[in-house]
Amino acid sequence: MEIDQMESGANGAGGGGFRLARCWELLCSAAGMLRGKVVGFARKLGRIARDDPRRVAHSFKVGLALTLVSVLYYVRPLFNNWGVSTMWAVLTTVVVMEYTVGGTLCKGLNRAFGTLVAGFIAVGAHKVAYLCGDKAEPVLLAIFVFLLSSAATFSRFIPEVKARYDYGVTIFILTFSLVAVSSYRVDELIRLAHQRFSTIVVGVATCLCTTIFVFPVWAGEDLHKLAIGNLNKLAEFFEGIESECFRENATFENLEAKPFLQVYKTVLNSKATEDSLCNFAKWEPCHGKFKFRHPWSHYQKLGALSRQCASSMEALASYVITLTRTEYPEAHPELCLEVRTACRQMSLHSAKALRELSAAMRMVTLPSQANVHMSAAIKAAKGLRDELAEDADLVQAMHVAVIASLLSDLVTKTKQITESVDILARLARFKNPENTQKDVGINVVS
Amino acid sequence: MEIDQMESGANGAGGGGFRLARCWELLCSAAGMLRGKVVGFARKLGRIARDDPRRVAHSFKVGLALTLVSVLYYVRPLFNNWGVSTMWAVLTTVVVMEYTVGGTLCKGLNRAFGTLVAGFIAVGAHKVAYLCGDKAEPVLLAIFVFLLSSAATFSRFIPEVKARYDYGVTIFILTFSLVAVSSYRVDELIRLAHQRFSTIVVGVATCLCTTIFVFPVWAGEDLHKLAIGNLNKLAEFFEGIESECFRENATFENLEAKPFLQVYKTVLNSKATEDSLCNFAKWEPCHGKFKFRHPWSHYQKLGALSRQCASSMEALASYVITLTRTEYPEAHPELCLEVRTACRQMSLHSAKALRELSAAMRMVTLPSQANVHMSAAIKAAKGLRDELAEDADLVQAMHVAVIASLLSDLVTKTKQITESVDILARLARFKNPENTQKDVGINVVS
Repeated sequence: MEIDQMESGANGAGGGGFRLARCWELLCSAAGMLRGKVVGFARKLGRIARDDPRRVAHSFKVGLALTLVSVLYYVRPLFNNWGVSTMWAVLTTVVVMEYTVGGTLCKGLNRAFGTLVAGFIAVGAHKVAYLCGDKAEPVLLAIFVFLLSSAATFSRFIPEVKARYDYGVTIFILTFSLVAVSSYRVDELIRLAHQRFSTIVVGVATCLCTTIFVFPVWAGEDLHKLAIGNLNKLAEFFEGIESECFRENATFENLEAKPFLQVYKTVLNSKATEDSLCNFAKWEPCHGKFKFRHPWSHYQKLGALSRQCASSMEALASYVITLTRTEYPEAHPELCLEVRTACRQMSLHSAKALRELSAAMRMVTLPSQANVHMSAAIKAAKGLRDELAEDADLVQAMHVAVIASLLSDLVTKTKQITESVDILARLARFKNPENTQKDVGINVVS
Repeated sequence: MEIDQMESGANGAGGGGFRLARCWELLCSAAGMLRGKVVGFARKLGRIARDDPRRVAHSFKVGLALTLVSVLYYVRPLFNNWGVSTMWAVLTTVVVMEYTVGGTLCKGLNRAFGTLVAGFIAVGAHKVAYLCGDKAEPVLLAIFVFLLSSAATFSRFIPEVKARYDYGVTIFILTFSLVAVSSYRVDELIRLAHQRFSTIVVGVATCLCTTIFVFPVWAGEDLHKLAIGNLNKLAEFFEGIESECFRENATFENLEAKPFLQVYKTVLNSKATEDSLCNFAKWEPCHGKFKFRHPWSHYQKLGALSRQCASSMEALASYVITLTRTEYPEAHPELCLEVRTACRQMSLHSAKALRELSAAMRMVTLPSQANVHMSAAIKAAKGLRDELAEDADLVQAMHVAVIASLLSDLVTKTKQITESVDILARLARFKNPENTQKDVGINVVS
């Protein structure tokens, strides 16, 4: 028994040692995993910062603005009479400070005007309610709050209001409710409203100064750069397709991996960024190359055209990729050479025209050379059309062929959609229609 | 002279009468214009309300929630000890109340957790600063505010944080700055923080109750409906092109005015709505047909495929429209009949498959019939390909023809872009490059 105990003790000690080692191992691996995660996260942060260093600057700018406003609290002699109201300056700074100058201006002005208008109306509402006696006052005020906040909320569904004054309407509702609900006397209210408004102005002014004078980020400039970037991406597609598909020694090989067949995709998804930048750019004063009343809305039209062009590119790209997946038949040599030369001219000159446009936009000069390249591209397209027109049978076959092949491309896309819905139905455990019909049958029978 | 005076007097009187009449006319026309504007505006509001009556319900819900919270102010015995803090309940209600349940939940939870975390950290910061003595305290607190708000602002650039916790981070910065800046003692702070947090909870709870129990608008349901709507729109395009282009008596006439060639455009622009609905849907509890952990992200994949399909449709639509603009040549009768029949089969069955998918999604059943239609469409496409493959010359011509015609379509789109940049350059008064070169030349000479 003693031996047994000893053995079990030895076993226990051995087991304990083993367990300790195991624990240590687990701890080490956990630490390793944690370290890996931290390193991965740090790399991600580094990438975000490197992608656009202005983000780091913006973060420090927010810190700076907040610290500046906070210091106001400590400079007692200057702002002592404001008291708790200084809180509103801090609140304003946090909420109003946006990445772009236009965003900050939009929010700042919306906040200031929303507060002002709501303050006036609320004081008026208080006076009216006061006249109606002690009992009716709270009931009347509650009715006012209900009606005005409902009406203001509904106004946010008007697209124009939503685009430019959404934040102002929120602040309007907020201020009106706060003032209407507060049980101060009217003269006290006016003093308070005055204090609150001036602190908000101080907050907005601090934000604007930091955002305009410390590494400013102009929404207008970003919008201009976005348009230039889109033009360059479209040009890259033309250049890629020229060199990979229409050059003499072009092989159509390994196309799927080529970056030029992916580059137009970011253009397709640029609408949301463009809309918000355009909205903010309209609030900005003249700066750099951009004068007062710069035609910002026109960038949206240009963007829509760029996206249309990108979606045609998607159709072409998907056709070219399917073509390389099936064997590419050795085409009729003469016809092919002619068409190939014309295609090469079309893509080459279109690319040059787009590069010219983007260069002209970057330099803010008139794009005079682009039209020359464009004419050459159109001439090549027309030449091809005329040449083919000589062979009437071919033209007929061609029209039918294009429609048929675009349509069969659409069939492939629809098939992908069907598969996607199938996966969704399985993931979300949709019911089996037969079972449902059975259930209905049983219900009818019973 | 008297006569003169009299005449001028008469003139004056006549002129006065004339002026009065003119004024009256102007006033009338102004009133008429104003009336027209008011009527137009009212019609617009009516249209917005009719488009989605839930908007009206939402407006009244906001009014109701705000009135409920305001009433808390007046029920003195219950909430007397909260005092000014009740303001935070009103503030929370205004800011947190969103159109969808998911949006309100997202903002409400973000607000509550942001406040809680920031409150704890801020109290800790206060204790640390207090230990370092009277002089160092404000300096240390300012440094804390600067560092934490910069770091938190930078974290908003991480895509995952931006998508789900953006509002929470804003509230974190806000609360931390407010608490850090306030010059209360720590025990007083904790009492205040407790009050503030409970008022925020009351605000969030009021919002949630109103948003969930009074005509709830579920983001998940809207996302599901958006996907169904997109499928129906794609089906409509197939049906339209089948009836207008591939039927026996199809004329290809007046195609531009047909609605089916516009319907896919809303699908192309659905990404922003889809992303925000998907983000909110993830916050929602199970409701109606949707169980807990419904695969919401999959809707984004389905949406991306739908948009790809729509952009192929755009390419086909623009090709068909250009074709009708130039004369449509009478095509080779036999070939045309064969291809036309195949095209008709492809579009008919694709449309049926899409309708089947959308019906299955609406009923939340497995889309079993869609695969049958899809197979028929693919079979038609394959049959056409095989039939054409018999004539090797034709296939070769076809591939080249498709690429060439897609490319010439791209040239047309690029030309539109060139024109658009030209207009932009004129509107924004871009410089003439020659003048600039001259300027440079002069500068070099001087």
